[in-house]
Amino acid sequence: MIEIKRLDAHEAVLLVAAARERALEIGVPMCIAVVDESGYLLAFQRMDGGKIHSIQVAMDKAFTAASARRPTHELADLSQPGSPLFGLNVALGGRICIVGGGMPLVVGGDVVGAVGISSGTPAQDRECAAAAVAAFAKLLER
Amino acid sequence: MIEIKRLDAHEAVLLVAAARERALEIGVPMCIAVVDESGYLLAFQRMDGGKIHSIQVAMDKAFTAASARRPTHELADLSQPGSPLFGLNVALGGRICIVGGGMPLVVGGDVVGAVGISSGTPAQDRECAAAAVAAFAKLLER
Amino acid sequence: MIEIKRLDAHEAVLLVAAARERALEIGVPMCIAVVDESGYLLAFQRMDGGKIHSIQVAMDKAFTAASARRPTHELADLSQPGSPLFGLNVALGGRICIVGGGMPLVVGGDVVGAVGISSGTPAQDRECAAAAVAAFAKLLER
Amino acid sequence: MIEIKRLDAHEAVLLVAAARERALEIGVPMCIAVVDESGYLLAFQRMDGGKIHSIQVAMDKAFTAASARRPTHELADLSQPGSPLFGLNVALGGRICIVGGGMPLVVGGDVVGAVGISSGTPAQDRECAAAAVAAFAKLLER
Repeated sequence: MIEIKRLDAHEAVLLVAAARERALEIGVPMCIAVVDESGYLLAFQRMDGGKIHSIQVAMDKAFTAASARRPTHELADLSQPGSPLFGLNVALGGRICIVGGGMPLVVGGDVVGAVGISSGTPAQDRECAAAAVAAFAKLLER
Repeated sequence: MIEIKRLDAHEAVLLVAAARERALEIGVPMCIAVVDESGYLLAFQRMDGGKIHSIQVAMDKAFTAASARRPTHELADLSQPGSPLFGLNVALGGRICIVGGGMPLVVGGDVVGAVGISSGTPAQDRECAAAAVAAFAKLLER
Repeated sequence: MIEIKRLDAHEAVLLVAAARERALEIGVPMCIAVVDESGYLLAFQRMDGGKIHSIQVAMDKAFTAASARRPTHELADLSQPGSPLFGLNVALGGRICIVGGGMPLVVGGDVVGAVGISSGTPAQDRECAAAAVAAFAKLLER
Repeated sequence: MIEIKRLDAHEAVLLVAAARERALEIGVPMCIAVVDESGYLLAFQRMDGGKIHSIQVAMDKAFTAASARRPTHELADLSQPGSPLFGLNVALGGRICIVGGGMPLVVGGDVVGAVGISSGTPAQDRECAAAAVAAFAKLLER
């Protein structure tokens, strides 16, 4: 038997709020998804003006970050034509998403969940994902 | 051009909270989804202990209620073998969900969104969906 | 509650007619799709000779233009290898389509629908989509 | 943060072996799937003669048992026409499988994984799944 740590529902809601706050600051309505360590959705918000295709993309970025255990923008680099992971970008019928904006949530080296943001530019999405990750770090300090 | 009314993000979050409160009262951890009038997800929470298949089922109940403009349990009756809608229960690759727990949110005769609940028995799911609908009615009174 | 504007059925039929007229002029039988602001199909025509895979592609171009709120050919540029949206081109199991020929329909800054054309070259598809957008502008002037 | 227990890879292999042994005894070549508590595959064997559609069905039975936290044959009863869960049987695009042969693996009230068997009659599938569950109980006694 393995013991694993998993983000809980309360933490997930706090992380959505942290990403939403940053989205409001930069003035970009976002789709915000938080998943557990197995990539299953814990909490989600689409802000007014968030794009409809971004609902799934936000979830897929979070799923990908949880599973690959690294930010999705790093996978983008590794999945370019000629790079070793080229082809990964179309795996799982599109569930794998390599666009920036997905970031894992790590505790003591273990991924316990992930956040995925979509609707802005990848840079804006990453900024809001980073805000959630920073909020998570503060949560752990308590 | 048509003018339509759509549930907003803030209202969606309040409705998730109302369903969650009832779920806590009856002691059943739920997956709670709120969608707009087009069936697109606005807000979602999986309470600790909510079932993983219920993530999609909650969303599908909400989608179905928004699109069919009636509670999913009414579709269950109509979709029984020998009944006129038999077959609807498998439409759209399973996105149509006729199990009780999906309820439309109606303003002046127009569907503006829907709520979908899953993880308990259909009766428990319906109870929490009804709590969200009741909270919506109160919101409209303000 | 949000109030949104949505293309109506009558307008959608007029836009299909406008795209069809241009397709006849350039002698390329097309698949023509018009969707609402949520990406749902309002009107569709496959002209005699329109390609069968283009039925879905036209719908997907229109869905993508409505959701991304920009022409699909712009997404093609942004989704090239090395560009920030590389990976978007395979999102949503292929529903996202970045090939030229999808264009949003905008009223006062808001997307109210979109048109998607497929069967010709992307340049031909764009030409017919542009004809529909031009017809929409004339409709609005009335 | 939540702490959860998850079946490990070694245990999964032992459970496959237990199901396989029973399959040999009853002379029915089986597809045998063992998943973790989130429904993800840990170990799988298709015995010579195992049916090809049963590869997916065995996985889906195990996924369903892990998520619903009960044997799939109980869901079959609850999903009959006229029963409250009618409609569940087609959820998630078919990933939910209510045919007997899926059984959860439970430790102290928590589901830590599940087993799914397919290729025989549902009664034969259940028998082999039960053999895996019995082997799991013995593992825990050590």
